[in-house]
This record gives sequence, structure tokens and C-alpha cells, in this order.
Amino acid sequence: MKTTLEVKGMTCGHCQSSVKGALEGLAGVQNAEVDLATGKVDVSYDESQVTLTDMREAVEEQGYDVA
Amino acid sequence: MKTTLEVKGMTCGHCQSSVKGALEGLAGVQNAEVDLATGKVDVSYDESQVTLTDMREAVEEQGYDVA
Repeated sequence: MKTTLEVKGMTCGHCQSSVKGALEGLAGVQNAEVDLATGKVDVSYDESQVTLTDMREAVEEQGYDVA
Repeated sequence: MKTTLEVKGMTCGHCQSSVKGALEGLAGVQNAEVDLATGKVDVSYDESQVTLTDMREAVEEQGYDVA
């Protein structure tokens, strides 16, 4: 499955890395690509292993909001 | 000795930590306090061990400009 999250508050490459790392650290997330300029994060995942709620919580734990 | 560096380009807490860590990682730097809002970094250091040039280079290596 693929989804696009809209993440608010990322300001720099460190933020980008934090969000990417948090998502890719979840079991079932295969890939997360962050566009810093737009805040859009394209995620490939296995829906039998991870939910959108899991992803949202992982991003929020890093201190960013998900639209 | 104490000095204040003016660092440009820090946008978030990660940037703040990077700059603080880079400076405090230099032998002879005792403490570096970063004010993210103003970009001012107050540094306490031993001038027999570390130079202003060393500090400037350490910050620039993290990707920030020093005024």
C-alpha cells in the first residue's frame, strides 16, 4: 500500500531525517520519502503490519503534526 | 574566555543541538549555549586550547554560517 501523509512543522534536513527514520523504524513500513518543501511524505507499507494511526503517532512523537 | 558567535540558518531544536554539540565537542570549549531565536551562541572556552577559527569551522561543518 502507499499513502501520503501531510506533515507540518518540518524546517530542516534534521527534521526530514527524524520523520523518515521514525516511519521507517515501524515494522511494516518499507519506505518513507519526505519532501521538506511541501511537507508531503510518501510511505510504502504493508497494511497487515502497520496502520495509518501507527504512522501518525510515530510522526507526532517526533514533535510534528500530521494534517 | 567568553565569546558570542552569531550563527545563521538554525531553524529548529535539532539545529540548536547540532551547533551546541559541535562546539562542545572541541577540546577547550567548556560550554556553548545556543539561543535559537536570535542565533546567538555564548561560548566559554580556554584560549590556550581552541581558537575562534576552530569554532567557526566546527559550526560551518554542520551547515550553518557564522556572521
